[in-house]
Amino acid sequence: MAGREGPRPGGRSARVQASVHAAVQALMTRMERAAITIPAIAAEAGVTPSTIYRRWGDIQELLADVAVERLKPDMVPIDTGNGGNDLLAWAEQYAEEMSSKPGREMIRDVLASQDGSGAYQCCNFTRQQIEVITARAQLRGEGFPDVDTVMDRVVSPIMYRILFGEAPDAAHVARLVAGAMELVSPARASVDEPA
Amino acid sequence: MAGREGPRPGGRSARVQASVHAAVQALMTRMERAAITIPAIAAEAGVTPSTIYRRWGDIQELLADVAVERLKPDMVPIDTGNGGNDLLAWAEQYAEEMSSKPGREMIRDVLASQDGSGAYQCCNFTRQQIEVITARAQLRGEGFPDVDTVMDRVVSPIMYRILFGEAPDAAHVARLVAGAMELVSPARASVDEPA
Repeated sequence: MAGREGPRPGGRSARVQASVHAAVQALMTRMERAAITIPAIAAEAGVTPSTIYRRWGDIQELLADVAVERLKPDMVPIDTGNGGNDLLAWAEQYAEEMSSKPGREMIRDVLASQDGSGAYQCCNFTRQQIEVITARAQLRGEGFPDVDTVMDRVVSPIMYRILFGEAPDAAHVARLVAGAMELVSPARASVDEPA
Repeated sequence: MAGREGPRPGGRSARVQASVHAAVQALMTRMERAAITIPAIAAEAGVTPSTIYRRWGDIQELLADVAVERLKPDMVPIDTGNGGNDLLAWAEQYAEEMSSKPGREMIRDVLASQDGSGAYQCCNFTRQQIEVITARAQLRGEGFPDVDTVMDRVVSPIMYRILFGEAPDAAHVARLVAGAMELVSPARASVDEPA
């Protein structure tokens, strides 16, 4: 049973997963990531190393699994009363969190995994946040770009620059959001969009 | 002396680098990437393992270095006689190459390196290609978006989808290119742009 698929809550398997995840996070606060080994994690979690090898295969897959868990959004996007401003507030926070040292390490761990499912899940977490903003805009009767447009015009350039160069500054994020919002025909948009 | 900075051509250091790079590439054709070790590379290259450790530190940095070399573009973007079509042809090829198995592995190797300079160099290779297309469009007197716009609207979404989901299809790439070209004011654009 792969940890990432989510074992039955409260079961033995779930308790092992929770304690191994907690052990990884505890070690990360005390030592350099590159120095963390499976025996050290096992000792911290109170399980045998073979439990970890059996379940995750290697440390890269375990680190990816922990990173995916940590990248799961823990809040609903802020409701500013306007879709364009909701998207701007969300994008600013996303750029800030992902470009932080822990953010970059989590992304790196997810992408280093041979199994691409973690990266796919992270992308889905992001899509779900955009869908919340979209649904609210639609309820208010506002025009709002579709999720793929927001992924292409806002999320992708933020992530590309974090991975391959420098994190975009606030002015750049605002331009990206404006570039996504410009696709909404003015006839459908019932509220102001950010400049 | 770091391999990535480029040793004096023809010098001893350059010959070591070339033979180690060739050894990595030869091993990659014969075995799974995950099974490649520094001692195996050293044996193939005819150098001692300590030569490799001294120069690259660990296998991850060596693989990143080899990947950056391989990601260096070996041709000038095709000249179709029109900036929009040049960009479309280039973007289709970029999406195809980067989403191939070797392409994905090279990107993964570059991003897995602790040293971010490889990722930065890859981004620069891409910018240089766009600059060639831009310069040709300007010589022809065509309007053409600036390099940052092309990076944000075309390159970033292609790379994001390759890393976090599925590679974009040809129709999607064409939409991305059209989305970058739409920023060129019609007054400045002297030729047709792709629909």
